[in-house]
Order: sequence, then structure tokens, then C-alpha cells
Amino acid sequence: MSNSFSFDIQHGDPETVARTGTLRTAHGTVLTPAFVGVATRATIKALEPQALAELGLQIVISNTYHLHLQPGEDIVASLGGLHGFSGWDLPTMTDSGGFQVFSLGAGKQHGVGKVAPIFPGENTAKPKIKPNKPLVRLTEQGADFRSIIDGSLHSFTPESVITIERKLGGDIILPLDECTSPLHDHAYTKRSMERTHRWAQRGLTAFQLLKDDPTFPNPHQVLYGIVQGGAYKDLRLESARIIGDMGFDGFAIGGSLGRSKKDMWNVLDWSIPLLQDDTPRHLLGIGEIEDLFACVARGIDTFDCAAPTRLARNGSVFLKDAPRHRINLRNARFADDDGPIDPFCDCFTCRTHSRAYLRHLCKAGEFSFYRLATLHNLRFLVRLMSEIRDAIESKQFSSLALEWGCHL
Amino acid sequence: MSNSFSFDIQHGDPETVARTGTLRTAHGTVLTPAFVGVATRATIKALEPQALAELGLQIVISNTYHLHLQPGEDIVASLGGLHGFSGWDLPTMTDSGGFQVFSLGAGKQHGVGKVAPIFPGENTAKPKIKPNKPLVRLTEQGADFRSIIDGSLHSFTPESVITIERKLGGDIILPLDECTSPLHDHAYTKRSMERTHRWAQRGLTAFQLLKDDPTFPNPHQVLYGIVQGGAYKDLRLESARIIGDMGFDGFAIGGSLGRSKKDMWNVLDWSIPLLQDDTPRHLLGIGEIEDLFACVARGIDTFDCAAPTRLARNGSVFLKDAPRHRINLRNARFADDDGPIDPFCDCFTCRTHSRAYLRHLCKAGEFSFYRLATLHNLRFLVRLMSEIRDAIESKQFSSLALEWGCHL
Repeated sequence: MSNSFSFDIQHGDPETVARTGTLRTAHGTVLTPAFVGVATRATIKALEPQALAELGLQIVISNTYHLHLQPGEDIVASLGGLHGFSGWDLPTMTDSGGFQVFSLGAGKQHGVGKVAPIFPGENTAKPKIKPNKPLVRLTEQGADFRSIIDGSLHSFTPESVITIERKLGGDIILPLDECTSPLHDHAYTKRSMERTHRWAQRGLTAFQLLKDDPTFPNPHQVLYGIVQGGAYKDLRLESARIIGDMGFDGFAIGGSLGRSKKDMWNVLDWSIPLLQDDTPRHLLGIGEIEDLFACVARGIDTFDCAAPTRLARNGSVFLKDAPRHRINLRNARFADDDGPIDPFCDCFTCRTHSRAYLRHLCKAGEFSFYRLATLHNLRFLVRLMSEIRDAIESKQFSSLALEWGCHL
Repeated sequence: MSNSFSFDIQHGDPETVARTGTLRTAHGTVLTPAFVGVATRATIKALEPQALAELGLQIVISNTYHLHLQPGEDIVASLGGLHGFSGWDLPTMTDSGGFQVFSLGAGKQHGVGKVAPIFPGENTAKPKIKPNKPLVRLTEQGADFRSIIDGSLHSFTPESVITIERKLGGDIILPLDECTSPLHDHAYTKRSMERTHRWAQRGLTAFQLLKDDPTFPNPHQVLYGIVQGGAYKDLRLESARIIGDMGFDGFAIGGSLGRSKKDMWNVLDWSIPLLQDDTPRHLLGIGEIEDLFACVARGIDTFDCAAPTRLARNGSVFLKDAPRHRINLRNARFADDDGPIDPFCDCFTCRTHSRAYLRHLCKAGEFSFYRLATLHNLRFLVRLMSEIRDAIESKQFSSLALEWGCHL
């Protein structure tokens, strides 16, 4: 573990395994539980990097797959890694590309995301019967795939992904994994998991070999392991045990999280107790408001999720006292509403603009709307995570969840 | 003329009719010559209103046609007019919708903009042979048109447009006109111009009738007249004489400006000497860098043009020492360029980001790029207009034009 990296637990919730902590990286400190902003292509969509610190956002995650295709890791490295390239000065993670391997492969074939619907219509992702041609081929060696930009052929191996991530220079990096589909059966999920474990070991070995190489932009990187196993109890237990013992600096829960919230909670309940208690735990790709409380209660320290920023661009902005904690500004009732999105919010957008003006920009498809709505949704989450930390510290976590109408 | 409105000329160029002036409105002062930011739908594309003052932008122009269709002038009025609605505190113009009447009618049929090409390929707009069905019908009464948003039928009359603009509350408003096409012949252009003159008188009468009505958000509005007549000398002379004598608070040069820069310069050379010297003159829809010097030299005080912001969104950013004063960040030579767009620029983008990062955002189609590039192009123009004012004051205008490689 890098000398610049540490994780200290401060407070534990008496009723759940929720905890507050301090995650130290070479680029600053993250108070946990924390929301990780999604900056896939070295920018949070619609926000300039300078806005991130003003929002109080503590940490962001970029994507190895997307940045490898464009602009390429060598260009990012030549400009000082992600920090120098983007100009932000925040702790930064890079995801490995495993999710993209899934999205372009089985996710595309199965027509599903990380959580598959039980009943048609229950989830927005609908399983498609006709198999789409996958854009990726997996072997023991790694993943061969075609660029979504120009169709060119690329290969990821556990080793090459570590090299790419070292060039990108994130503070916390993740090894290549296969993110299985909720529609994969036990046999496939098991074979895939076992291969992901072998890839994890190869990634870790490659990471340790490159550790003292001074040519990379960030000498203080750490590597998290990724627990897989789909929604199968025996596999999650096995994966948490094996990944938990490999010597990673932290853990991420990845892959399929089943077909319901209950499945997702089970995955966390099975996996987390087997991971070292004093290491940080990240949940990949989950972070809608209704999920935050339940996942923190199960011991998750950090989350990343594109939904808050994607919702913002669609006109859906967060508000505590609203169904699913959001309103859609396209709604006609806001046409002449001179109040802010949220009278209790201190974000630039709520301090400056009325719902009526924002609705107009949204309906007109003005780019300025995307930024203003994104500023609000991210600031809202930053404040909510701060409330959650305070509640854990003051032993009010379950009453805060109740106040927000969220299950633990 | 409103008591809050005045125009004072400070300095004249000894070699041309360029001049510097101070335009005072109820929402602040504009030092001229000035570039007017295009905020068609109550926002400059990709910029939040708060950014405008930081840029040093002095004045913006919004569009009556677009704001009438969405959100509607009554909503804008109920939120305090354009200033209250958008939150900017700058002098604001509203265009009348005459250009949209043109674009949806003859411009669409002829496949041209305000300047038509002499030779195919010389201009980006190519004349189309097949007539497209126009979306507008013009009568003596006014313009009937279909909404581009939902196909609903709307009517503009010279009187209704004044009422709409009074509700929008801009400081400087324009009467309904017909903007003719460069492909219209002398006979049509003359008939159209004569109708535009009758519309101008009706607009002026309506404006004077509503002058003391306290129900409108901005009691200090003024009305400019619009000179038409296409690229025909006799018509421009006639229009400038007639519009010049009606009693408007300022003048705009509108309509077709012919088929070349020379035609455009002729239109200005014919029209401007016939307008009262001590009134402000606005040139509608022109403002590329190469046009600024020549039009200022002919006595234009303010310009609006969507090109600088549209260019920005396409990756074209201004730089003095470059062909046509711009570079396109999509160019591969900027892939690892760690310098700013312009080392002499003080804009947020140049102070903060490298060409390499901006190129990446541009190629990735990230919304954050549109804002960053727009900030640069507008700040660049703000600084250039300031240089032009200083040069006129110090009698260096023609040498500044020479330095920029621009014709006078």
C-alpha cells in the first residue's frame, strides 16, 4: 500500500454496519460514506472540472476503456495524468473497463444492465430475445473488442489494463474483470468469476512489478480488488474470500446484482462481512437516492453512479419532499413557478434561477440547462452524504433514513 | 425617447466614419463599438447568464419569435421580463422575428442566408433548386406562420409584436419587418420594403400608444427602426431616408446584404450617411472578425452574430495569428498540445485548460466543451472590441485593422 493512502474508520452505527471513515489519497482526503462523481471521459458530463471542488464533491471516477480509445493513455500521461490533463485536484479512481466489456458483450446480447427485471416493465431495461452481435470476445488472455468510435480492434489483458491505468494516474485503480449479466446462469457465472480471480491475481502482480517505475504520473496509486459472483450466494462468498485474501488495498463490489433491490442487498450482506473490516469498500455503478441508505447500512463506503447526472440532463432534479426524491422540470406546473428547485439547497442553480426559467431552458434543449441541473443534483447528493455521515456520528442514521422514507 | 436612454459620441476616426460612443440604457451602459451576444432563447447557447458579466459582455439580444413560441411572453413578463426571467443584468435587445419570417419563408425556399453566394461553393449556404414549402404567409396585415415546435398556427402583426416585446422587456426593441432574400429581384424587394415601411410606422404608433402603460416589466424601452432594401442602391437610399425620418431612437440595418463583402459594404455606405449621425446604428446578424473592422469603419456601433458561439460549439476557436483568426481544435496537431488556445487571452478557458484537453472534450462531444469554447470566443471578441475602441480613440484604427489583416 502506498504511504500516501490510508483508511481510518471513525464512527460505527449501533444498529447496522454503517460507518464513517477518512480515506486519504495522494490528491486529498475523502470523508466516507461518499458519492463518487462519474467523470467517464475525464469530465463530469456538462460540468467544467473547476466546478467539482466548488460543489464539495470529494472524489471522481473515470473510465479506462473510454480514455484508452480517446484520447489514449499516452496523451493523458504526457499531460501529467488525469489530474494534470483535466485540471481537477481531487482523489480520482479509474474503472477498469470490465463494465464496458460486459455492456458490449453479454449486456448487449441479453439487453440488460447490472440489475435485470423480474417482470417485464418492472425495470427500464427489457431483456431482448434476439441476440445482438457482441462487440467483444473474451479469452483466458483477456478481452478483444472493437472501438465504439471507429471500429478498430483493441485488446485488454489484466496486465495491459494496469499499464494503462498507471498512465492515467488515478489514485485508486481497478483490475480488469468480467461483469456478468443477471441473465447468466450459475455455471457461466462461476466460470467467469474464476477467470476474473485469475485476472485479479495477474493484475495485482503487474501492479506490484510496476510499483517503483518513476515514469508514471502518479507514484501513489493503490489497487482495489473486485468481488464478482452475480446474485449467487455461494459464488459471492467464494469471491469475497478469494479476492479478500489477495492483498488489495480496498475492495469493489461489481457485476450483476440480481433482479431486485433485495437481491442487491443480499449480495452486499454475503460479501462484505468476508472483506477485511478496515479496508474501504466501493459499490460500482449504484447510487440512486433510494439505494444510498440501504447500501451504507450494509457497510459500503463509496458509490459511483451515472444516474444523478443523467437524470439532471433529462430534466429530473432532486428534491427531498417529492416522490422518489425528484421532480421533472418539464412538467407544465413549473411553467410560471418563480421559486428555486429546492428552497433548502445552497447550489448555484437554486441560488440563482427559478423553476420557470430552468423549465424553459430544459424544454428548449439549451446546453446551459444541462450544466445548471447537474450542478443541483450533484450538490444535493454531496449534502445528503454529509447528512448521512453526521447521522452515523450522532447515532441518528436509522431515523435519518426514516425521515427520507428509505429502507435500511 | 426614454429618459433612461441616451447615446453620446466620444471620438471619431479621422480616416473613416468609425466612432466610439456611450449607449445608456435602463440596465446599464454600453461602450461602442460593441459586440452584442446572441441569447436567442433567453440564454447564450451553452452559457449560464451569470457568466456574461464575467466575460465583460456588455449587451445581449434575444428573439421575439422564439420566446413567443416558448415559454411565451406572458410567462417572461410574470417573472419580471427578460432580466428577471434570466437573471442577467445587462442591456438587452429583442429582435422582432422578421429574420425568422425570412428563414421560414423565402430563405427556406431559396436555400440561402442573408448573404447569398456568387459562385457555388463560395459560401456555405448553397442555393437549392427545388422549392421547399414555406412555413410562413405574409400579408399586408402581418405574418402567419406555423410553430417550428408543435406546428401550431401563429400570427404576428406590427402591433402584436410590439406588445410581445413590451412584455419581454428588452431595453432596445425592433419592429416587425420582412428580411428579404439575396435572390429576390428588385420588384419584389421594393414591394416588400414598402410594406416593411408601413409596418414600421404601425409598430411605432403602437409603441407610442403603449408607452405609459405601467403593466409592462420595463418602462424604459426604446424602439429602433430597421432599414431594408436588399442590395439595391435606390431602395437602400429610399429606406434609409424614410425610416430615418420616422422618429426612431436608433437604427438597425437589416435584410439581404447581397452576394459578397463588397455588396455588404455598399449597403452600409449607401444607408448610413442618410441616418441621423447622433443615433446608434446596429447591424443585424453580422459579426465575424473579418467583418468587424469594415463595418465599424462604415459607422456601425453595435453588431450581433451567432457565428462566434456556433463556431465555438464546432471546435473553432479564435486566435489572432491564425488563418481567418481561428483554429479548429479537432485538428490532430493539438492532440498533445499542453498550451492554452491563446497565450494572450485572459478567459477562464485559456487560464485553465490545455488545447489537448479541450480537443479531447470536443472530439468526445462533451457538453462541457461547448461552454469552455464559447467562453473563449466571446471573451476574445469582447477584448477585440475594446482594442478597436482604444484604437479609434488614439487615432490608430487603420493601423489596428492592418495588424489584424482586415480590410476597412
